[in-house]
Amino acid sequence: MTLRVDGDRLAEDFAALAGFGASDGGGVTRVAYSAADQEARDWIDGELEALGLAVTRDAAGNSIGLLAGADPDLDPIAVGSHTDSVPDGGRYDGALGVVAGLACVRAIREEGIALRHPLALVNFQSEEATMGAATIGSRAFVGDLDRKLIGSTAFDGLSLSTHLRRAGLDPERLLAEAGAWDGRFAAFLELHVEQGAVLEECAVPIGIVQGVVGIRRYRINCHGVANHAGTTPMDQRLDALVGAAPLVTFVRDLAISLGIVGTVGNVRVLPGSANVIPGRVELDVEFRGGDQATLLRAEEGLRAKAEDDLGMEFTAVSAKPPQAFAEPVLQAFERAAEELGLGRTRLWSGAGHDAGVIATTTPAAMVFVPSKDGISHSPDEFTDHSYCVAGTNVLLQALIGLDALRSF
Amino acid sequence: MTLRVDGDRLAEDFAALAGFGASDGGGVTRVAYSAADQEARDWIDGELEALGLAVTRDAAGNSIGLLAGADPDLDPIAVGSHTDSVPDGGRYDGALGVVAGLACVRAIREEGIALRHPLALVNFQSEEATMGAATIGSRAFVGDLDRKLIGSTAFDGLSLSTHLRRAGLDPERLLAEAGAWDGRFAAFLELHVEQGAVLEECAVPIGIVQGVVGIRRYRINCHGVANHAGTTPMDQRLDALVGAAPLVTFVRDLAISLGIVGTVGNVRVLPGSANVIPGRVELDVEFRGGDQATLLRAEEGLRAKAEDDLGMEFTAVSAKPPQAFAEPVLQAFERAAEELGLGRTRLWSGAGHDAGVIATTTPAAMVFVPSKDGISHSPDEFTDHSYCVAGTNVLLQALIGLDALRSF
Repeated sequence: MTLRVDGDRLAEDFAALAGFGASDGGGVTRVAYSAADQEARDWIDGELEALGLAVTRDAAGNSIGLLAGADPDLDPIAVGSHTDSVPDGGRYDGALGVVAGLACVRAIREEGIALRHPLALVNFQSEEATMGAATIGSRAFVGDLDRKLIGSTAFDGLSLSTHLRRAGLDPERLLAEAGAWDGRFAAFLELHVEQGAVLEECAVPIGIVQGVVGIRRYRINCHGVANHAGTTPMDQRLDALVGAAPLVTFVRDLAISLGIVGTVGNVRVLPGSANVIPGRVELDVEFRGGDQATLLRAEEGLRAKAEDDLGMEFTAVSAKPPQAFAEPVLQAFERAAEELGLGRTRLWSGAGHDAGVIATTTPAAMVFVPSKDGISHSPDEFTDHSYCVAGTNVLLQALIGLDALRSF
Repeated sequence: MTLRVDGDRLAEDFAALAGFGASDGGGVTRVAYSAADQEARDWIDGELEALGLAVTRDAAGNSIGLLAGADPDLDPIAVGSHTDSVPDGGRYDGALGVVAGLACVRAIREEGIALRHPLALVNFQSEEATMGAATIGSRAFVGDLDRKLIGSTAFDGLSLSTHLRRAGLDPERLLAEAGAWDGRFAAFLELHVEQGAVLEECAVPIGIVQGVVGIRRYRINCHGVANHAGTTPMDQRLDALVGAAPLVTFVRDLAISLGIVGTVGNVRVLPGSANVIPGRVELDVEFRGGDQATLLRAEEGLRAKAEDDLGMEFTAVSAKPPQAFAEPVLQAFERAAEELGLGRTRLWSGAGHDAGVIATTTPAAMVFVPSKDGISHSPDEFTDHSYCVAGTNVLLQALIGLDALRSF
């Protein structure tokens, strides 16, 4: 018989965690390093210790609970996510993956199953972009941290260093010990809510996440001549907004034709007065997709259109390559869903996650469960409990399956 | 022989006036009611008094110089413009019309010409929109003032009332005496720089201005659904900016097809973040034109497109009807230019002017001379001296011509 987690207990654990930093609207405010965040973290650690795990905190504030395995030569298989949230965020983002990990540990302990590998539950710190950057805990894990990042300004205007110190952490130790955990896991598995509506749209409970998309951002400047909107005839105008407008639909059409997503998220018009012809327009453009070659094709298409056709200024602002997840872990998720008789589909994550960072040095993958109406980072965030249980069971089966593999 | 003004003297007067509030960049800062503005005004008044005119100031701070005519039953024919400027404005805007009026008075006095009508030179106060509204002096003349306008906030955050008091004027008296001069002129003639490039473009020195365009402004709200730019597939988006973009070129095309000007002067994107699909976009739209029926056709075209076709919210923000100038005065300008052998064309003023306000109750018209590159409200504002002389001669001939007409 296939092992399953206790759904009622999962609901209890989930409700208990949601009590830390509970907001009036039904969501949570558990910003990284805040008191509510620390209390939630302490509570999870306590539950793990009660189950016999040895729990440590690293310099970034990540909690790592370890359960010994049968073979002392093997690295741990890790599960987990994060319990920090955005201000007035939802109850599911991050929290589900941590509570699901706890449910897996409970099931394994209660059934008395002996895994070959040690089992780790990681509750990453500061996954949300509240501290001026995102995924700080997982970046510390793999050593992708520098002094500049530590100097970041958080959402509240204070520095990350200040937040660290207030939580009893030492920024210098964080820098010195960055990468201490790098490569120490055999695999990392993360359950998370989708934060989009793809699964809901195709009515499938389980999303096997192939990777985290690459993100490329651009700023495009369209120059015209600012002039009096009353005294300048139409045929004497060089209107920067009239010049820039076609680019908005171009970005949409280009993204659709390449099978990626593309967004013009902001437009600034200068001088921006009702009676002045726009002299300059600035657009923020972003492409996201799972295939680097396709992203580069989109970039070249946009550049050629903006620079060559329309005579605009084209500036690349940032570029993060796609991070594909490890096929053996993906297959473990597939087999688990198959075994549990759960419908599934493969998809890419359009948002960043701890697993995307860990995957740069460790075999990792994620499983998604549906987000109602795709809503996230909001008290309205919701995932049906049956999906939470289904996703947790897939996580449990996948880690048991991986544990049994000779190659791990 | 046709009477002509003294071109050299005109240049001297013009340079003297430009000395009041002269700015580093070669322009002037003579904001209404400021010390520089008062000094310029006093200097003009002194020159008029030296020529035998009786000069008075009204409650708005307008200066009116009067020269008696041969027929005591006739109302004055008035010429003039304004000597106030925007902060760091140009030397020509307004100033040219006042100095030209002074040149006409000089020519008439020096030749000993006896006009049938009294001749008035009006130096209007606060024509620029620095005091929270424009053409305050001429609006006081015709009685188009109320308490709300007096409460306007000026460019510097102070109230119009404060500026009036600091210049020794009484806001209550301004309200009480508004309209005191209404209908007391037989005609009003104003020479002004074009502030556009139509005359320069068609290489014509004299523009006979048929009227001041009507201005209609709108706010259009396009609603979409703000969502994560990474996790929301292209076919699940309702992007407010993609929806709004076609309206920018629609406004341009509609204006061209109707022979008016149309401008989208600003676009606000909400929330305006690179990684969020725009949820709402707000556009500021303006139409200007000389024909009210055409403006109403533009409005209906825009409304139908925005509301009916695109499902947007359409709000009319403000509407000012076109103000046509008086045909007898226009013809006097035409005959004057003809007599002087000067090329001319008829055109509409896309910007507001004192003559546009006076024309609501008095036969009035304007003559334009070319602005280099159409630049205005800038120290780079420039009109060739030969055009200034030509325009002043047209003004002089037109007023002499009108004076001789039985109908005036």
